[in-house]
Amino acid sequence: MTDKNAMAVNATTRRKMLTSGLKLSALVGAAYSGMSRANSQAPDPLITEIQDWNRYMGDGVDANPYGSPSQFEAEVVRRDVPWLTADAKSSVNFTPLHALDGIITPNGLCFERHHGGVAQIAPDEHRLMINGLVDTPLVFTMEDIARFPRENHMYFLECAANSGMEWRGAQLNGCQFTHGMVHNVLYTGVPLKYLLQEAGIKTRGKWLLPEGADPAHMTRSIPMEKALDDCLVAFKMNGEALRPEQGYPLRLVVPGWEGNMWVKWLRRLEVGDEPWHHREETSKYTDLLADGRARRFSWEMDVKSVITNPSPQAPILHGQGRTVITGLAWSGHGTVRRVDVSVDGGRNWTTARLDAPSFSKSVHRFYHEFDWDGRELFLQSRAIDDRGNVQPTKNALRHARGENSIYHNNGIQTWQVRPDGSAENVEIS
Amino acid sequence: MTDKNAMAVNATTRRKMLTSGLKLSALVGAAYSGMSRANSQAPDPLITEIQDWNRYMGDGVDANPYGSPSQFEAEVVRRDVPWLTADAKSSVNFTPLHALDGIITPNGLCFERHHGGVAQIAPDEHRLMINGLVDTPLVFTMEDIARFPRENHMYFLECAANSGMEWRGAQLNGCQFTHGMVHNVLYTGVPLKYLLQEAGIKTRGKWLLPEGADPAHMTRSIPMEKALDDCLVAFKMNGEALRPEQGYPLRLVVPGWEGNMWVKWLRRLEVGDEPWHHREETSKYTDLLADGRARRFSWEMDVKSVITNPSPQAPILHGQGRTVITGLAWSGHGTVRRVDVSVDGGRNWTTARLDAPSFSKSVHRFYHEFDWDGRELFLQSRAIDDRGNVQPTKNALRHARGENSIYHNNGIQTWQVRPDGSAENVEIS
Repeated sequence: MTDKNAMAVNATTRRKMLTSGLKLSALVGAAYSGMSRANSQAPDPLITEIQDWNRYMGDGVDANPYGSPSQFEAEVVRRDVPWLTADAKSSVNFTPLHALDGIITPNGLCFERHHGGVAQIAPDEHRLMINGLVDTPLVFTMEDIARFPRENHMYFLECAANSGMEWRGAQLNGCQFTHGMVHNVLYTGVPLKYLLQEAGIKTRGKWLLPEGADPAHMTRSIPMEKALDDCLVAFKMNGEALRPEQGYPLRLVVPGWEGNMWVKWLRRLEVGDEPWHHREETSKYTDLLADGRARRFSWEMDVKSVITNPSPQAPILHGQGRTVITGLAWSGHGTVRRVDVSVDGGRNWTTARLDAPSFSKSVHRFYHEFDWDGRELFLQSRAIDDRGNVQPTKNALRHARGENSIYHNNGIQTWQVRPDGSAENVEIS
Repeated sequence: MTDKNAMAVNATTRRKMLTSGLKLSALVGAAYSGMSRANSQAPDPLITEIQDWNRYMGDGVDANPYGSPSQFEAEVVRRDVPWLTADAKSSVNFTPLHALDGIITPNGLCFERHHGGVAQIAPDEHRLMINGLVDTPLVFTMEDIARFPRENHMYFLECAANSGMEWRGAQLNGCQFTHGMVHNVLYTGVPLKYLLQEAGIKTRGKWLLPEGADPAHMTRSIPMEKALDDCLVAFKMNGEALRPEQGYPLRLVVPGWEGNMWVKWLRRLEVGDEPWHHREETSKYTDLLADGRARRFSWEMDVKSVITNPSPQAPILHGQGRTVITGLAWSGHGTVRRVDVSVDGGRNWTTARLDAPSFSKSVHRFYHEFDWDGRELFLQSRAIDDRGNVQPTKNALRHARGENSIYHNNGIQTWQVRPDGSAENVEIS
């Protein structure tokens, strides 16, 4: 990139903003180029520009008992990358972040990560057992669980491997692939502590092992302090029953912590006195450092953000003028306090507008409206959470951990936007 | 109902709650009857009670690019009532409120109301025109609209006819049918005022006529004060593009006001100096009073609530003991401050627990955990909003307006719960 050009873009942008004043039509209107205008004395010609969709009667209310998106949104789907893994039954697909807005991920678009395919469980036959260091081992039916007090919380779930390809610069071209292993959902469930307290935790019970009912029997060691804090045993997502690929009929919700601890198809909770060091927390889901040692128990997902539009899958189509930059920011430590956006690869930063709603350990939506003069851009976003954690550069992460890591890449992402509006995943140093 | 019995239930419940103390296992555990317990010295037999779903490998991540609910949730769908209307293309279906929790309605389950079927609109060809008493008539493409600043808000949408069958006691048996013409969605869109200010409203412009592109050309008169307050021109719902049946690619959002003003497939906004008195605000969507006069412009949806579980479609299956009563409350005037629940047909009321999140002009979720001794119940809920409006009884509404009304029934609903756990829509006086 040429720094001189980048600086020029920024100066022009600031000048336009300063001169546009406070009148809204000037603020949002001056830079539009594609809008049709007509003489206000003769509005009729305008009407001919409006498509008339009323030449037929459409479907009635009996056509789609459970609805689906428009035929014109057929490209907005989860996508997998076949060469990433040996088999689709133990693989991942990605949320199309570039096609979404707001903070909710629709259930049909929440990314999937399985280790043995999607279990299809009949809820009437499903059971959850609590055993180990408890006063009274218990087995719950779904009906039993629904008799405990419920809570509703919106949380992001991010796979620890999200952005993992970026560590060594093997970039996939689009935020769906670089950052799409995250989704954000309103969960309804029972606080885990209520179920554990029902069984009674023995004094030596300091760890919890949730286990899934799928062929992979996913297990992870969770410290009792977290289990008794904000974990949920959830049965609804975004209002309706969990989807099969998200653990129907029951999943563990471990707010702010890496995705594979959120055990799906939850069938057992074992209380123990030490961590189990199972496969998924030793050979996988640890971070190998440059010196051959590994970080263990890197549970929390650090502060992170990404610009979703414009991005490689969502180029600027309207040409120069007013452009809305938007994206997502999140932190496993709490809320996001601020997001900065740079259009010049990190030389200058402007504070973006965070649009409500905001919840702890949930994604936040940010917007930055600016006037594009058509020059090349290097777009970046940088999130700061309410604990003061600042999203680092990728190079800072590599300096701290080497390049053997797969997990926990929360580095700043760069999209190069070319004068024709197309965008690409690039790294700048 | 027998008041004596109802009082006895209430006294027993209160006594149980008082004696349960603060220990959670006592609070939530004493009343459970269906839970399996085992000797803690021999937990192995428990494991045999847990179904093992791991005898097969399930679907991989390439199987469902856009996901769908579990096969075991096939009954959770929108339902229409064929005899209600002459044709399904101008009719309504209902949200399955009894099967949902939290506050979000999944897009596939948001009730539908059409006047000419669902328009299937290609977004690239869709246009929105602003004409009438404006400085500059404008035509916007979808791309143009996406260049204005966006906001995200969660709002309920309720059809004015929701609960309309209840006026004269012609009750349908289930909250899906009595109250299912409401849904609650996070919208992403552009504040309407930005688009109107872009065109420039002339001094005489005091009213707005939004018009749909469907065969019915739905139009309603909206005062400019509301248009410039909190209305949105929305293109996303719950994160993804609007669904076709909800106005794809563009709908008007009129927070707190009756559903048919939220014009779908929005193609035109005309600014005028007086209301238009079109068909849908004269022969329909006015409330006929006992003396033959009609209320006109009854726009706001008043404070309302309904118990969704237990209810006729969701009976109590677990027998006596701890039972979770839950439901929804909303007000077109703001937030819901309090919901009271009665198990004895309104003689005694207990304040329910409102579970976050809470937004203005959005539904609120309430819970009331109580110990059922198996006696007949008459369940009611009563909402109070932050302006102090109290949800009235149906009889109070009939006294004020007669029984000719179809619209704006926000009266208190009663479910009779029998000792076998089944429930029915009843009226008590």
